Amino acid sequence: MLPTQRACSIIRYILYSTRYCYTSNKLIKSMEKTRGDDTLVARLVGSSVSYIRRCLFRLLSVGPIPNHMAFILDGNRRYAKKHNLKEGMGYRAGFFPLMTLLKYCYELSVKCITIYAFSIDNFKRRPHEVDYVIDLMIDKIEGLLKEVKTVNRYGVRVLFIGNLKLLHEHFRIAAEKVMRATANNKQSVLFICVAYASTDEIVHAAQECCEDKRAHEGREIIKLADVERHMYMGTAPDVDIVVRTSGEMRLSNFLVWQSSCSLLYSPRALWPEFGLRHLMLAVLMFQRSNPYLEKRRKQL
Amino acid sequence: MLPTQRACSIIRYILYSTRYCYTSNKLIKSMEKTRGDDTLVARLVGSSVSYIRRCLFRLLSVGPIPNHMAFILDGNRRYAKKHNLKEGMGYRAGFFPLMTLLKYCYELSVKCITIYAFSIDNFKRRPHEVDYVIDLMIDKIEGLLKEVKTVNRYGVRVLFIGNLKLLHEHFRIAAEKVMRATANNKQSVLFICVAYASTDEIVHAAQECCEDKRAHEGREIIKLADVERHMYMGTAPDVDIVVRTSGEMRLSNFLVWQSSCSLLYSPRALWPEFGLRHLMLAVLMFQRSNPYLEKRRKQL
Repeated sequence: MLPTQRACSIIRYILYSTRYCYTSNKLIKSMEKTRGDDTLVARLVGSSVSYIRRCLFRLLSVGPIPNHMAFILDGNRRYAKKHNLKEGMGYRAGFFPLMTLLKYCYELSVKCITIYAFSIDNFKRRPHEVDYVIDLMIDKIEGLLKEVKTVNRYGVRVLFIGNLKLLHEHFRIAAEKVMRATANNKQSVLFICVAYASTDEIVHAAQECCEDKRAHEGREIIKLADVERHMYMGTAPDVDIVVRTSGEMRLSNFLVWQSSCSLLYSPRALWPEFGLRHLMLAVLMFQRSNPYLEKRRKQL
Repeated sequence: MLPTQRACSIIRYILYSTRYCYTSNKLIKSMEKTRGDDTLVARLVGSSVSYIRRCLFRLLSVGPIPNHMAFILDGNRRYAKKHNLKEGMGYRAGFFPLMTLLKYCYELSVKCITIYAFSIDNFKRRPHEVDYVIDLMIDKIEGLLKEVKTVNRYGVRVLFIGNLKLLHEHFRIAAEKVMRATANNKQSVLFICVAYASTDEIVHAAQECCEDKRAHEGREIIKLADVERHMYMGTAPDVDIVVRTSGEMRLSNFLVWQSSCSLLYSPRALWPEFGLRHLMLAVLMFQRSNPYLEKRRKQL
């Protein structure tokens, strides 16, 4: 048995204990709620949970860790319906797991993370729903700006990609501020796809290639590298695994070029239910198929 | 319960009986092998199997049938290894289920079928393996030419798509003959992707758009429809479902543009093991997610 496989088996076994972490997190929250402030017990439980998580991550890191993970945050509306929440509250509920995910990915040393926040097609939804989501995003971006020191301490560069011209000026200004404030961070990159569609991105790249060709008349044909260079992500590594919550086995026009050879993992959980267990299963799935991919790369 | 859902439940129940069809097919084959010619019993079993299949297809057709199904024929080499066959024999073993699949799709009235026969990356395999597969394909294309009357009776138009310039002249001539001989068929289309990669196709389309732009200086920007028009498949409907055998959850540079919103279904069976049961499960999976997609289309 290879060390990676051994580690995987151990993790699989331990993974059920992450339910305990989840339960403990809930416990902490309920204690905070009832007592109004942190208690010694809550802090002790919190530390134990973090310790267990770090141990699991150490074990997981025996195998290869994906360079680039992409997430389709699907199921917010269904979550709101399931829990009888007000319309739009599903998106708010989806913000907490997103922050937790980013923290976990940082701890796991995933270099690139891409999230599908808002597609071009989403503009066709009911106007008040579109406004609600855009306002929520602006609110969170402005929140991020206030916490930019923390973001810089973690060394995360934040980049908004997509057809940003389609967005309100207010959004664009806030997004540009965040991008400028984190431009020098080199530890990891967070791509946030807003007003995005893969086919739109490819058409945009083709257009740019065409302009290039016109400018340098000597160049005769467009090459694969030219199109790649003009993609919004530029030189980011190809996506290793796309995670789409809510059990849907489709990409919905998300990074189709960059994930042409990537793994697709689709847990049944709705986005606000996504947790440590699902993230670890995604990494395990990547590790399981990695030796086969490496072998294929050598064969090719 | 909707009629579609009711039909699906019935089919799910009956589907286990298709194992019987499979066993019966094996039975017929073994009988043919031992006796050397058709017997009355074998013919009777054969007719019953066809009858059951047609009944199942009728039932399945209560729900929507995909317009366009695409198949990644994965697992031929692993099949050969699993059954201790000579190298290359896995590809031969994969030819029979392909023919059967085409017959079933015809019976189900699927309008477009696309198969990933040989990718551009496959050229990087060992030279004798590449030669073996190409020779096998030429052999089968020439066989198809001899049976072109049957193909025309079924009304199937055969189109080879991909960077055909990369192929040997012998292959190209045979492929062109088949395309010409079936050009007037309108019942259904079979796209065979050879020397194909999606990124290569997109770059080719971008190049063509650029040429167009140069020819008609008035046109300012490349649009989505321009890129679409220059794809090898042209106006074929978008892929409804991509089936990839051997349990792999990735597209491997296959139709990423055309299947940007398609379902991915990945049964564990290796390609030569793919049968009626898997095809029907693929259609059921499409039918199950179809109401949700329809609802989303209305919402958008």
